[in-house]
Amino acid sequence: MSKLTDVPKRILIGRALRSDKLGETLLPKRIALPVFASDPLSSVAYAPGEVLLVLSIAGVSAYHFSPWIAVAVVVLMFTVVASYRQNVRAYPSGGGDYEVANTNLGPKAGLTVASALLVDYVLTVAVSISSGVENLGSAIPFVVEHKTLCAVGAIVLLTLMNLRGVKESGKLFAIPTYLFVAGVFAMLVWGVFRSVVLGDTMHAPTSDYEIKPEHQGLAGFALVFLLLRAFSSGCAALTGVEAISNGVPAFRKPKSKNAATTLAAMGLLAVTMFCGIIGLAMVTDVKMAENPAKDLIHNGSPVGEGFVQDPVISQVAAAVFGDGTFFFVLLAAATALVLFLAANTAYNGFPLLGSILAQDRYLPRQLHTRGDRLAFSNGIVLLAGAAILLVWIYGADSTRLIQLYIVGVFVSFTLSQTGMVRHWNRHLRTEQDPARRRHMIRSRAINTFGAFFTGLVLVVVLATKFTHGAWVALLGMVIFFGTMTAIRRHYDRVAEEIAAPDEPSGDDTIRPSRVHSIVLVSKLHRPTLRALAYAKLVRSDQLEALSISVDAAETKALREDWERRGIDIPLKILDSPYREVTRPVIDYVKALRKDRPRDVISVYIPEYVVGHWYEHLLHNQSALRLKGRLLFTPGVMVTSVPYQLESSEAAKLRARRRAEWTAPGSVRRGPVERRHKEPHHHKS
Amino acid sequence: MSKLTDVPKRILIGRALRSDKLGETLLPKRIALPVFASDPLSSVAYAPGEVLLVLSIAGVSAYHFSPWIAVAVVVLMFTVVASYRQNVRAYPSGGGDYEVANTNLGPKAGLTVASALLVDYVLTVAVSISSGVENLGSAIPFVVEHKTLCAVGAIVLLTLMNLRGVKESGKLFAIPTYLFVAGVFAMLVWGVFRSVVLGDTMHAPTSDYEIKPEHQGLAGFALVFLLLRAFSSGCAALTGVEAISNGVPAFRKPKSKNAATTLAAMGLLAVTMFCGIIGLAMVTDVKMAENPAKDLIHNGSPVGEGFVQDPVISQVAAAVFGDGTFFFVLLAAATALVLFLAANTAYNGFPLLGSILAQDRYLPRQLHTRGDRLAFSNGIVLLAGAAILLVWIYGADSTRLIQLYIVGVFVSFTLSQTGMVRHWNRHLRTEQDPARRRHMIRSRAINTFGAFFTGLVLVVVLATKFTHGAWVALLGMVIFFGTMTAIRRHYDRVAEEIAAPDEPSGDDTIRPSRVHSIVLVSKLHRPTLRALAYAKLVRSDQLEALSISVDAAETKALREDWERRGIDIPLKILDSPYREVTRPVIDYVKALRKDRPRDVISVYIPEYVVGHWYEHLLHNQSALRLKGRLLFTPGVMVTSVPYQLESSEAAKLRARRRAEWTAPGSVRRGPVERRHKEPHHHKS
Repeated sequence: MSKLTDVPKRILIGRALRSDKLGETLLPKRIALPVFASDPLSSVAYAPGEVLLVLSIAGVSAYHFSPWIAVAVVVLMFTVVASYRQNVRAYPSGGGDYEVANTNLGPKAGLTVASALLVDYVLTVAVSISSGVENLGSAIPFVVEHKTLCAVGAIVLLTLMNLRGVKESGKLFAIPTYLFVAGVFAMLVWGVFRSVVLGDTMHAPTSDYEIKPEHQGLAGFALVFLLLRAFSSGCAALTGVEAISNGVPAFRKPKSKNAATTLAAMGLLAVTMFCGIIGLAMVTDVKMAENPAKDLIHNGSPVGEGFVQDPVISQVAAAVFGDGTFFFVLLAAATALVLFLAANTAYNGFPLLGSILAQDRYLPRQLHTRGDRLAFSNGIVLLAGAAILLVWIYGADSTRLIQLYIVGVFVSFTLSQTGMVRHWNRHLRTEQDPARRRHMIRSRAINTFGAFFTGLVLVVVLATKFTHGAWVALLGMVIFFGTMTAIRRHYDRVAEEIAAPDEPSGDDTIRPSRVHSIVLVSKLHRPTLRALAYAKLVRSDQLEALSISVDAAETKALREDWERRGIDIPLKILDSPYREVTRPVIDYVKALRKDRPRDVISVYIPEYVVGHWYEHLLHNQSALRLKGRLLFTPGVMVTSVPYQLESSEAAKLRARRRAEWTAPGSVRRGPVERRHKEPHHHKS
Repeated sequence: MSKLTDVPKRILIGRALRSDKLGETLLPKRIALPVFASDPLSSVAYAPGEVLLVLSIAGVSAYHFSPWIAVAVVVLMFTVVASYRQNVRAYPSGGGDYEVANTNLGPKAGLTVASALLVDYVLTVAVSISSGVENLGSAIPFVVEHKTLCAVGAIVLLTLMNLRGVKESGKLFAIPTYLFVAGVFAMLVWGVFRSVVLGDTMHAPTSDYEIKPEHQGLAGFALVFLLLRAFSSGCAALTGVEAISNGVPAFRKPKSKNAATTLAAMGLLAVTMFCGIIGLAMVTDVKMAENPAKDLIHNGSPVGEGFVQDPVISQVAAAVFGDGTFFFVLLAAATALVLFLAANTAYNGFPLLGSILAQDRYLPRQLHTRGDRLAFSNGIVLLAGAAILLVWIYGADSTRLIQLYIVGVFVSFTLSQTGMVRHWNRHLRTEQDPARRRHMIRSRAINTFGAFFTGLVLVVVLATKFTHGAWVALLGMVIFFGTMTAIRRHYDRVAEEIAAPDEPSGDDTIRPSRVHSIVLVSKLHRPTLRALAYAKLVRSDQLEALSISVDAAETKALREDWERRGIDIPLKILDSPYREVTRPVIDYVKALRKDRPRDVISVYIPEYVVGHWYEHLLHNQSALRLKGRLLFTPGVMVTSVPYQLESSEAAKLRARRRAEWTAPGSVRRGPVERRHKEPHHHKS
């Protein structure tokens, strides 16, 4: 795996980057496409199958509706792509759906989109990995026999890779994605060639199977409902389309234009592959049943529990290339790989969205820091845990997981497009230039249609899939929404509590007048001497040393040493029969404050700085505890005077290494650019 | 469970105790006996059986040697008791074997004893619980059928009780222990009465079983070796005798005399019960086999795997009282209860010994603080974990666990007695008073005999039991010894590194001359204003505020607010394109130090103090990280200026409650008294 820095003619941004940040270079379109499109393109591996599967409920005759459903999906895809081309032009900062909804529809809409996206990231991992395992399983039976285990294993592996901080690279994405696209197109071309030119009749492995319809002879409303459900399932092909709108800053200039072009290319590829696979599935007589064990009939009897229903893409490949041939295995491998890459995108998107939410105080502040390893790790582990849970519960069955998937996507599509309509309305109020106005009116029309269409699909998805699992996704969204609202409320309450009063009086309590400094002393060693020296340097009104006597002999030795060295700071000794350190100090500080409420007590604590975690266990524990307690005492400040032991060098190096770590996902995030909260001034 | 404070006429020690420490009152002998003797007395529940078990290897005929072995155990018991009566007189401070060995034989011997005792505590839990489960099992078959599970459950229960901090109370100990002693004596008296006066022939459940000897007709060296092995097993009756020597401070005055009397009473009770049970076992024809499944013959065939060999005490009780009678069940329950209490003593002894070892820097310093809950908990969990491991590995089989048990006890007996001989030698060198000299010479004679005899037993135990499991105990000792040596070495190395130079020059680095104070500012809220006010109060040579700009708009707002309020401290703003906080600050501080190496940089960090753990996650994370990094930077001190939010009240209360927690085991530890490292001045 080579880094993107190897890509020639890389353009470095603004100020010189340190070597450890060099990975963040700009993406040419040919690399940007695979980086952002592995998720939406990979969904053609499962979306066509889902359509056939739902239609099979009404029997094989209903398969005739599949071209119409494909057309509907294509129209929707073009609508969504056209809409998002407006988004990337209007919001080149890469805020994505969350930013669009937040800015134009208000915080509640923004938070709803954010919750939907977070749920979606979890489902992207669960669905992509499950589907990847199923595709790999069509070539390697072992994998599909231990489906759940393999899926969980793959998630764990991805998680470990991301935790270790594998650098994302454009090439890493490009090769499998282009391999997958090339493979699918080769299959389509070869299939059409065999069928039309050579006149071969190709047979999918399930071509001589029959399907027992669950509901024979559906008509009227029931049939429409079934078709809508099939269409909803087909919409799985649209997941991940919005990814590019988050990644505009990673594109080369002109960023927005390049992003829009890439979006169009991606849409075109996706619909071609989607329609092609459905078409070949029809030609090769693929049969998919919702409950294959009892509804798939072979030689007059159901196939039973042991039967494994391979994905449509692999059945078509078996028909076109021949089962087990080199090209068949290659396509299966490429499909699995691109699906794993799609899952990996969630690992990059989840923390990125987290950092944006943290900036708006919906998540802990520390997530805001870019490349904060700890925050990143927490996000990754949360994502992986949720995905593993889902995979486990649903037995890594992509069909059942997809029922949950599409809700979140369309919630964010709809809200984002509605937000865009508002965006154009607002700009039209002030824009005078007729050419620009025309442009805006056109964009508004596109987004309005997009909002309407995706909203309609959302209603259809909710109506047809709620009981099939969509409620789980909604529940997840409600949980995220509730948690983030609570966090925001906490921050707001604290902000209110600590807001400075407006008159420039300064402090809220009694104005402090004097500083009484106390240096905690246990022995007269270098750390103590340093603390004493430093404390003397800052001229406080009163300075004394304080020692807690837990052992008479040690205390006596300390007192003698003190006098022998002629230290000109008074030494106060407090008795502690229970060998406690914390309580006597706290009591003493409180007594001082009671006597002179306007005194500020400044406590100096000499601390050893050590290098290894096990050394931490051996030092500073009582100092840490004391510090913890002192911080609860009003009118006190606590100063750590560190003394670096030799072993601390090791820890220093480690800390530096940690600081220089870069979070995965930096390729798609592009170079750093200040994100503006109100990007109204951007012109499309 | 009532506290010991209910015992009338309690004597409060020295200074008035706070209410939360009132539990620590002094023990009258009648309470001290059960508190300290539950461990040694309970061992008569398993020791007699072990003797018979080993003898059975040579066939039932070898049972005739059992009275001789009992005599040897009695002689040993008297020797040990007599020896420890010298210990408690010479060391009324309660340091126990570790202190005696450490003071008189040097740190290596002391550490050996400490390692042996730590291993012993683990084994006390494992053996007592296993034996308790076996005794309970003689009345309740379910328990013995799920032996390991029940034993682990009992350990977990004890652990949870101790972690929660159940207050030890004298009565809690007194009732089961006296019940047990009374029950055993009732059994002995009633058994002798039935046999001698009524002339009944009593039959143990196994009286009509036969034993197939593993080695028929042993003679010569082999027989002697077997007898020695049986004797070694019988020595299990002596475990726990040393406990009183740790607990002298808990006794009423005259402490040493009362402790010595209690020791004698305990010894007398133990040997009577031990001999009585062996005697009745002979009378009632109890049969014990090492491998009952194949060596115990009933009606001509081995009893097989399903057979459960009940402990001798319960077989005798069945013979004397009748199986399943009220008295039988009562005695079984009392036996189990007293064994669980014996296990509980380890939970008290382990952290106590830990705190003494911590004082000598063999364990982390924080263990030294009495009643330190965290340290206590860690000790408890370590003890429980090790005991559960042993119980699991050995299937809660007390017979197999006892093989490991006795080594540690006799290591500490032998080293302690040897230490006492040295102690008297040293005192005899300076003592002039003839009466005292006579007394000392007598004491020395007793300890010399004790050292010799226990040393001999140690050799016997090692020789006869090494391959049977004693090596595991030795390995445990080596691990403890190694770990503690390493910790001590670390502390010594650090102590050397930080030792102050002898000339009163003061500091080791360039003598600091000025203080440059930096207040970190993110926003102008109350915490910041407080930090600014405090920083101004301590008059440093230079004072500035520093803000890291991660968002242009926020920075602008801060600058405006700063000017509007007319704050007379210069505000410096550093850019951070990666939204990092730590690195720019560190770099800035380093640059300052480079320019003026004699400057000390004082960094003030405003911190929120919040009340709940989840609030911690939301605040101060970057401050904490920054602080961590700053401590590695030389010439820096870091001051936390806390701002207590309203929610911090909750945490304050919680912290106070934690501080007022008293560790279990305080009854046996007695009131606080300064422990002197060199107690040579104590006269016996």
